[in-house]
Amino acid sequence: MGGKYFEELEVGQILKHQTARTVHDYDNILFSTLTMNPQPLHLDAEYASKTEFGRPLVNSLFTLGLAVGLSVQDTTLGTTVGNLGFQNVEFPRPVFGGDTIYTETEVISKRESKSRPMQGIVVFEHRALNQRGEIVMRCQRVALMLKRPIDK
Amino acid sequence: MGGKYFEELEVGQILKHQTARTVHDYDNILFSTLTMNPQPLHLDAEYASKTEFGRPLVNSLFTLGLAVGLSVQDTTLGTTVGNLGFQNVEFPRPVFGGDTIYTETEVISKRESKSRPMQGIVVFEHRALNQRGEIVMRCQRVALMLKRPIDK
Repeated sequence: MGGKYFEELEVGQILKHQTARTVHDYDNILFSTLTMNPQPLHLDAEYASKTEFGRPLVNSLFTLGLAVGLSVQDTTLGTTVGNLGFQNVEFPRPVFGGDTIYTETEVISKRESKSRPMQGIVVFEHRALNQRGEIVMRCQRVALMLKRPIDK
Repeated sequence: MGGKYFEELEVGQILKHQTARTVHDYDNILFSTLTMNPQPLHLDAEYASKTEFGRPLVNSLFTLGLAVGLSVQDTTLGTTVGNLGFQNVEFPRPVFGGDTIYTETEVISKRESKSRPMQGIVVFEHRALNQRGEIVMRCQRVALMLKRPIDK
């Protein structure tokens, strides 16, 4: 069990996640169609060739989803109740098929839950970087985390 | 072309999107594995049966992605440069396999881009509702929108 309980997370802690993932054009097609997104910027290479990017732009929510997914092993795996939300989700640079995404997470804040004494609220900042070390996504995720069970 | 140019969007406008989508357990598996998310809450029905939800919780980023996807036909289809980001993404209620997701969008604000005279920044609030009319996701999306071409 790789996730961390509320007590194990410290503000300022930075976790560099081991697994990276190369994004393929087909990820973009699969993600966009699965989420019913008809945007030609993602699906239509001819259309995209006439935009400022010159080729299909990877769906930004795929980048967000992948960055969160790659962080879970080290953060919330089996130690969360669920995601309460996200704040300040930014995409400073585009992602294209062939780019490789690396991720890191910083613990921004934590506090006890008022209504749930066995749980606490942790804000993670996730950052996704491409193969040139440029930040392509930054967000803050608000997670309702479990405290360590008494018998552990 | 169903998307709206910057000039066609008015603050306060509410768009109720026609296409709805029933979410299946397999969407959750496919989305979570595609984004490399190993969270047992999403993938492991035995684990999930012992949580407060009693069954797998649909990945909240699938709900976000689907709500945005279902809105694109009426908002940004072919009329956006790209997503700048998201703010205040909330998941007030859980989504489970079998739930049907309906969406609506409100135009929250718009302003001209300072650096790009042919473009403007529009903030959309997307809301996803389940079959009981309960809000399961609310977010604000910041989109860089094209102005109407001079020949249209």
